[in-house]
Amino acid sequence: MPKTRLEAFSDGVIAVIITIMVLELKVPHGADLASLVPVVPVFLSYLLSFVFVGIYWNNHHHLLHATQHVDGIALWANLHLLFWLSLVPFATAWMNENDFAPVPVALYGSVLLLAGLAYYILARVLVTRHGKDSVLARAIGRDWKAVISLLTYAAAIALAFWNGWAACALYAVIAVIWFVPDSRIERYVERRQS
Amino acid sequence: MPKTRLEAFSDGVIAVIITIMVLELKVPHGADLASLVPVVPVFLSYLLSFVFVGIYWNNHHHLLHATQHVDGIALWANLHLLFWLSLVPFATAWMNENDFAPVPVALYGSVLLLAGLAYYILARVLVTRHGKDSVLARAIGRDWKAVISLLTYAAAIALAFWNGWAACALYAVIAVIWFVPDSRIERYVERRQS
Amino acid sequence: MPKTRLEAFSDGVIAVIITIMVLELKVPHGADLASLVPVVPVFLSYLLSFVFVGIYWNNHHHLLHATQHVDGIALWANLHLLFWLSLVPFATAWMNENDFAPVPVALYGSVLLLAGLAYYILARVLVTRHGKDSVLARAIGRDWKAVISLLTYAAAIALAFWNGWAACALYAVIAVIWFVPDSRIERYVERRQS
Amino acid sequence: MPKTRLEAFSDGVIAVIITIMVLELKVPHGADLASLVPVVPVFLSYLLSFVFVGIYWNNHHHLLHATQHVDGIALWANLHLLFWLSLVPFATAWMNENDFAPVPVALYGSVLLLAGLAYYILARVLVTRHGKDSVLARAIGRDWKAVISLLTYAAAIALAFWNGWAACALYAVIAVIWFVPDSRIERYVERRQS
Repeated sequence: MPKTRLEAFSDGVIAVIITIMVLELKVPHGADLASLVPVVPVFLSYLLSFVFVGIYWNNHHHLLHATQHVDGIALWANLHLLFWLSLVPFATAWMNENDFAPVPVALYGSVLLLAGLAYYILARVLVTRHGKDSVLARAIGRDWKAVISLLTYAAAIALAFWNGWAACALYAVIAVIWFVPDSRIERYVERRQS
Repeated sequence: MPKTRLEAFSDGVIAVIITIMVLELKVPHGADLASLVPVVPVFLSYLLSFVFVGIYWNNHHHLLHATQHVDGIALWANLHLLFWLSLVPFATAWMNENDFAPVPVALYGSVLLLAGLAYYILARVLVTRHGKDSVLARAIGRDWKAVISLLTYAAAIALAFWNGWAACALYAVIAVIWFVPDSRIERYVERRQS
Repeated sequence: MPKTRLEAFSDGVIAVIITIMVLELKVPHGADLASLVPVVPVFLSYLLSFVFVGIYWNNHHHLLHATQHVDGIALWANLHLLFWLSLVPFATAWMNENDFAPVPVALYGSVLLLAGLAYYILARVLVTRHGKDSVLARAIGRDWKAVISLLTYAAAIALAFWNGWAACALYAVIAVIWFVPDSRIERYVERRQS
Repeated sequence: MPKTRLEAFSDGVIAVIITIMVLELKVPHGADLASLVPVVPVFLSYLLSFVFVGIYWNNHHHLLHATQHVDGIALWANLHLLFWLSLVPFATAWMNENDFAPVPVALYGSVLLLAGLAYYILARVLVTRHGKDSVLARAIGRDWKAVISLLTYAAAIALAFWNGWAACALYAVIAVIWFVPDSRIERYVERRQS
């Protein structure tokens, strides 16, 4: 099967996820700058979640760019990824309403960890379908970056029970690592095409 | 008419349906693990509805993949399917708020039954347009799977009045049956193309 | 400019409009069939609005199918149509919450009338761009159907001040007239291509 | 990388933004014309925001039309633009709930200013990638229009602290300036193609 509809559907779901999160930004009651102060941490966590979902979209874009075709298993591996991403707004909202308390911060990290795991599974499913010597397989390689970020998520979740803000800082570090999109794939495909 | 816009619009509607359901996951007031406990059944029913809508998207993907062209009747048969799917979030929410009481569970099943019926009609409309000997007609065949799941939905709706949880278990069984996407079409089209 | 992005953006906006309307279907408090009774008129008006937005999507699909290219004016004529369509959920909700009182029913009709006018303008803009002898111009012709339905909307709005339900019935009549999509275009394009 | 998914994702996000804003139009309690009066300013600010987001979509359409390919930096420059656009519904809602008080009106202008800046950065990133002599670079040129509107936003934000309505009028002036889409690009590309 061609990959176009999988891309279009994923674009649609991620577009809705990234946009409905902003509905959590409740309008403050006052009309002065001081009334915006309590919105600041909510805004920052919205920014963090926006960046995370944006990273997934970017990497998904790169991954599918190197993909030639998809099958039924790949469709479900992709829906599995979208499922965990769809829980990001809920996890963000719970974290916000409890001033970054341990359990909500740990749940937020768990959703990110499970989304990361789902992305890893999707990449493996696609690589298996395309064969060891495909452009996709060579472009992704051993995928140390994914493994390291999954381990870092786990560490951050444990850290949340000691200090919620420290865990959030560690999440932000992972975001920065991934901020540069999957340039391995970009570079590899370019080299192949030239 | 080409089928691209029908696919794009359906992707958009299904993407919104599958994503706004998560807005039903109300953030709990407490910040500890215990306060997540009442969210668990809501989460499970969200998961079930996500899987059902995902199944429809997968099967729709396969059905349209084997389709060559669409006309005005097919557009309306497709909108009819989207209408019943759009009621899934409402039915899920009512079921959640009433601890899986008989009538809401039966309504949830009825919406699934009507969506299944609408999918069956859409498949028939497309098959009729393409002719008995088309790839599409041969790929779908008699469609026993659809007929059996429609009958099982009806049985589960009746069961709901005796025990809501048993009906939900039966819905989950149908989901598992359909989990494997319409591989008949996938296999048939592949064989034809090779 | 090619028309693909105008189609994709319109699909996205109409998909969101048609789906967020269902959020107006508030979950009833009871868990028996009787508690569904007050939902019935809301459900019917949701159905009516779904059909109206579906009609616009269908006709938009047909109109753009016959279109070769778009320019800046066409983009704004299209956004103008989407603006009025985006008010359908608001108008539907106000009508529901007031048991089909005169003013809300008239407002609902006015939104439909303005959307119809915007569609008429969009069709004219596209026809002008393609020239009198284009496939598009010949397919649409004098567009009596559009003119008649605009006049009927105006009559229904006046009727609303006498009886809200009668006006709604007249809206439904217009929906039935348009239910059959713009088969003129479909037929004309087919004949030209054969 | 091809630009199709960047276009599709942006279409999705902008479609959701432009449509969820209408959820801010709260249904009035009464059923007469008088009860619509307090909705009028909310409606006008919805209209203004709809036009602004529509302008960004139009210009984005023109900009990407002249673009040949995108890379990871362009993806993030685009997400950066979508981030500020996603805050338009929040800023509109806060402005509405406070009768166009100075700080909310200034915040609304700041969001528009930051979206304008993000659009400018995106255009620069794309021009740099395509080279000084590309169709895109020549079509955009020095981009005085963008620079002037950024300066006007800054002036309107300052003006908001003196009079909120005057600032809104200045925002509307910028909207009118941009209303005519980026016809420079349209004309330039056309000339090149002929």
